[in-house]
Amino acid sequence: MTSYRYATRLNSFASNAQSYWPDLTGKPTPMQMAERAATVRGLTDLDLNYPDHAGDDMAAQTRRLADLGLGVNGLAMRYYTNPNFKLGAFTHPDPAVRQEAIDLTKKGIDAARETGSDLMTIWLGQDGFDYSFQADYNRMWADEVAAIREVAEHDPDCQISIEYKPNEPRAFSLLPDMATTLLAIKEAGSPNLGVTLDFAHVLYADEVPAFAAAMIHRHSRLLGVHLNDGYGKRDDGLMVGSVNTKATLELLVQIQRDGYDGAIYFDTFPDASGLDPVAECEANIETVERLLRAAGRLSADNRLSEATSRQDAVTAQQIVNAALEGT
Amino acid sequence: MTSYRYATRLNSFASNAQSYWPDLTGKPTPMQMAERAATVRGLTDLDLNYPDHAGDDMAAQTRRLADLGLGVNGLAMRYYTNPNFKLGAFTHPDPAVRQEAIDLTKKGIDAARETGSDLMTIWLGQDGFDYSFQADYNRMWADEVAAIREVAEHDPDCQISIEYKPNEPRAFSLLPDMATTLLAIKEAGSPNLGVTLDFAHVLYADEVPAFAAAMIHRHSRLLGVHLNDGYGKRDDGLMVGSVNTKATLELLVQIQRDGYDGAIYFDTFPDASGLDPVAECEANIETVERLLRAAGRLSADNRLSEATSRQDAVTAQQIVNAALEGT
Amino acid sequence: MTSYRYATRLNSFASNAQSYWPDLTGKPTPMQMAERAATVRGLTDLDLNYPDHAGDDMAAQTRRLADLGLGVNGLAMRYYTNPNFKLGAFTHPDPAVRQEAIDLTKKGIDAARETGSDLMTIWLGQDGFDYSFQADYNRMWADEVAAIREVAEHDPDCQISIEYKPNEPRAFSLLPDMATTLLAIKEAGSPNLGVTLDFAHVLYADEVPAFAAAMIHRHSRLLGVHLNDGYGKRDDGLMVGSVNTKATLELLVQIQRDGYDGAIYFDTFPDASGLDPVAECEANIETVERLLRAAGRLSADNRLSEATSRQDAVTAQQIVNAALEGT
Amino acid sequence: MTSYRYATRLNSFASNAQSYWPDLTGKPTPMQMAERAATVRGLTDLDLNYPDHAGDDMAAQTRRLADLGLGVNGLAMRYYTNPNFKLGAFTHPDPAVRQEAIDLTKKGIDAARETGSDLMTIWLGQDGFDYSFQADYNRMWADEVAAIREVAEHDPDCQISIEYKPNEPRAFSLLPDMATTLLAIKEAGSPNLGVTLDFAHVLYADEVPAFAAAMIHRHSRLLGVHLNDGYGKRDDGLMVGSVNTKATLELLVQIQRDGYDGAIYFDTFPDASGLDPVAECEANIETVERLLRAAGRLSADNRLSEATSRQDAVTAQQIVNAALEGT
Repeated sequence: MTSYRYATRLNSFASNAQSYWPDLTGKPTPMQMAERAATVRGLTDLDLNYPDHAGDDMAAQTRRLADLGLGVNGLAMRYYTNPNFKLGAFTHPDPAVRQEAIDLTKKGIDAARETGSDLMTIWLGQDGFDYSFQADYNRMWADEVAAIREVAEHDPDCQISIEYKPNEPRAFSLLPDMATTLLAIKEAGSPNLGVTLDFAHVLYADEVPAFAAAMIHRHSRLLGVHLNDGYGKRDDGLMVGSVNTKATLELLVQIQRDGYDGAIYFDTFPDASGLDPVAECEANIETVERLLRAAGRLSADNRLSEATSRQDAVTAQQIVNAALEGT
Repeated sequence: MTSYRYATRLNSFASNAQSYWPDLTGKPTPMQMAERAATVRGLTDLDLNYPDHAGDDMAAQTRRLADLGLGVNGLAMRYYTNPNFKLGAFTHPDPAVRQEAIDLTKKGIDAARETGSDLMTIWLGQDGFDYSFQADYNRMWADEVAAIREVAEHDPDCQISIEYKPNEPRAFSLLPDMATTLLAIKEAGSPNLGVTLDFAHVLYADEVPAFAAAMIHRHSRLLGVHLNDGYGKRDDGLMVGSVNTKATLELLVQIQRDGYDGAIYFDTFPDASGLDPVAECEANIETVERLLRAAGRLSADNRLSEATSRQDAVTAQQIVNAALEGT
Repeated sequence: MTSYRYATRLNSFASNAQSYWPDLTGKPTPMQMAERAATVRGLTDLDLNYPDHAGDDMAAQTRRLADLGLGVNGLAMRYYTNPNFKLGAFTHPDPAVRQEAIDLTKKGIDAARETGSDLMTIWLGQDGFDYSFQADYNRMWADEVAAIREVAEHDPDCQISIEYKPNEPRAFSLLPDMATTLLAIKEAGSPNLGVTLDFAHVLYADEVPAFAAAMIHRHSRLLGVHLNDGYGKRDDGLMVGSVNTKATLELLVQIQRDGYDGAIYFDTFPDASGLDPVAECEANIETVERLLRAAGRLSADNRLSEATSRQDAVTAQQIVNAALEGT
Repeated sequence: MTSYRYATRLNSFASNAQSYWPDLTGKPTPMQMAERAATVRGLTDLDLNYPDHAGDDMAAQTRRLADLGLGVNGLAMRYYTNPNFKLGAFTHPDPAVRQEAIDLTKKGIDAARETGSDLMTIWLGQDGFDYSFQADYNRMWADEVAAIREVAEHDPDCQISIEYKPNEPRAFSLLPDMATTLLAIKEAGSPNLGVTLDFAHVLYADEVPAFAAAMIHRHSRLLGVHLNDGYGKRDDGLMVGSVNTKATLELLVQIQRDGYDGAIYFDTFPDASGLDPVAECEANIETVERLLRAAGRLSADNRLSEATSRQDAVTAQQIVNAALEGT
């Protein structure tokens, strides 16, 4: 059975903060959240948001996390420091604001490298449009691609992974789906670019996760896998396998076949409805292990690939049902 | 374990008609499709569309089906005989066309009774609107409710079950969802009215199936359950449990608790992509039996109801995962 | 031409706060936002969130708003004071937390009355579910209805208006759409209950706004109209008429016909993407006035009602197109 | 003002066939429908489906259409002749069925050329998947791209335009959106490939039409524009401008700027609800002319491009509102 590192969203551990830290006023610090995350059985890594979770000394912060038993899987950009970013980061119409977003990203890449990681995930949610006649699409696209290239060239040894999402916060994102992201990456042309696939974003984009992964593998590189679940109408951030169990299993089979060896990161929102984030993360790990065992049973059985080669969905379902039941 | 009758969609058995009936020209007859359906292991019943599947002598037709080992679960209205019905059946603006739809329904109810069944399912897909300013909503609603009452009163011993669907063929249906249907039934007031819940329609309406079933049980009566599956963006008609396994299990648990004892009807479309309809139907029965076993394990375990009473989704997921794995 | 009071969302005026109030640290106060809102030409009223926007002395706060030329249209409940409300307000499984939400609502009703308004809008976004097997739907529904009845009976002279929304923050709301809300109101039975229709929520619920308004008028009372716009996939909060111009016009025609005389409230989010909230609100008022003029032209022309009575969408479109063009 | 040829969907003219042709039994012939279409004021062209609408002698058929005053804008492939195509045309797992689809397409291209047109539109709706584990995505993609290349190379002087659609008839199309289609075209590499943009498909794919057009222009060529309208949840096929008036106007402005000089084709479904197809088509032409006049007013006013360059949506809306009102 393939073995993955398991990483998770640090902010989840602010869930029910007042009951976990009765004396806390305000929000927990990143290190407090990390200490709580470290109690999750099976968790190996964290992703840190930049600049939100970053301290002045990333190397020291990394050592403190290592003392808790946690590695840094990578950093992820957040463009909240300047309120003007609401109208766009890499596509802001004001060249000064746009450059500020680019420079912040470069600093984030430097910070990622100081942790020893070589992975920066970029989600460009602010780059989009809400209204007809709001945007000059050609200029916006050119600005986006040029900025992606500029940050990728900042440090060729750091992998830059673009995480797409169709909507939210903008009504429409410039990079809403797998294929538009691949078009941008091809146009940018930097070899250290790749894609992070977030399961709930993929559903929200009306895509099949395993198909998206296969296309990313064919046309670029899959650099990150965010597992969670949802109903396809918004970015629900639910527990892994809680809704689309078979699509999750199919994704795991696909990324194993394509040789993905990065972390499995849980981008779930237990804090949104007050769930226990430690139990929730342990449930996610348990579900992935359960599905990886089913994936193992499937790969040992060539009847599935024969059924798939005929697009025989009935036989494939029966084989998958049995594999999920452990029989 | 609860035992259900299993019924299915007759038109599914036109799938790959030319390879099944090499000498066939045109479409198979209803009785040809029934003969093919009779080869499905475990199938007990059929639903017949009216007037499409009805012959001149319903009693004789019922006996021929009985000879094949199949009962008639009920009839289902189709409003295709008059092309004017495209603009509306019970809500057509022309009183003569509207009355024709009502009268056709009454004949269908009579035909249902001649089969020995007491169930007529009505799907009012043509009753809706496509454009702003196309419809006088108050008149349309009043026409719909009055027609539902009129056909219900035609034969108080026949259960009239309304099957809702949010869109298609009209851009918006007048009875799109569970609650609007219940409002219409309350206003019509006839005691022999109830609701048929179609799983894929429920997803398409952005509803949770078990919640819809519970509300129908509280406010009216659940008279029909159509199982299938889909992705919530259209009426996919996929195999049971192929996408939303847990929501299907939750629905089965809910209807058992509420005492549903009608048939489980498979409203799937194997013919849409050329799947083998016999194997597909057998897979659906097998999946339901599998899920009913899991439901039995869950009902024997009061940890689930305790978790649900706290809305503790993490614990509930773990219990359900184990029950589905058969452990 | 019908004349409406125009109210708007106070928090919109935090948009670009740092450029409007260069010396501001943190967020602007409610009164600062009100002062900015008062510069909007044509704005007559505000809605205040409770408890967020409420001070200790509502009468004094109302006088200060009056000095700015603004009335208080009503109050709107927000359940953010206790983090436990994330799992539910009126449906929280812990009776103590549930009662806290009810008591907070009663205090909000008292505060509304102290402003001289008789309108409290309740949006129960936290009352819902995210997962299969998370909720006991019957208990949740009974708790919701009982709490609605309890707060309605607290002050029979205060109108309690329920604003529905299908999803967000929970994956599924208990009161997601027009008809479910009407079922709850019928079951609660209090005469001072009614419904607030939010245009973008209606689109998000896959409903036609004018149809929803007509059904609310038939089965209960329309107590609030929130205008904005969006693409139906989320609660976009865009400028009025920016996407669904004709559906907005149809809604205005419908509520005029049904005698709605409350305020037109703009529930838009200019702050989400950094638009100028004063110009945005003025554009909304200008658009509504433009559409009310078109509505006047339509009501003076009986060709439209004739076309609608035949469901003749082609003729209706041509008449509406001409009315919108001012010809 | 730009002047376009106007083409339309021939099958629309089967709407209410029995009342138009009282003596007709069965369906009207393509030439009967063309005769009815020829009564539409302003219509210049038809698109013919292949093989459905094609006779033995395309040149003679073209002359008969010319006698009616109608040109042939192009042909459009339909894969209905072999029921096996339901599981796939260019991606059918059986090489013989797949080759049959390719060969049929080549014949269609030959037929298009015999009409004097150089445009073949290909919609690959059957090429997709319904279930997890049904498809080998890499093989399916390679098969699709190779077949597209093969038919494109069949006649380099015929433009081959791919029309995408996200869902239906399959749950997921292989070429669901603008960017996936562009990826396939880039990989196929044939210079005579391009894209047909269908407005309702674009909405269904959760895309902004003008953005899609701009990206197609940047990365390939826009070879066809299908106008209609809808609500984004399915392929509604409504009258142009009936829902998303501003997005339609923005698309017209964008394609004018990018130099599109093909026909405007109305892909609407008046037959689905029994509308008069002649009046409906005339209304579509009238709406486009109305919007082109508004586009002319906008292009003469550089305040709009200034607002767009700042992403100032408020100012842009006000300018567009005024242009639509003709002021």
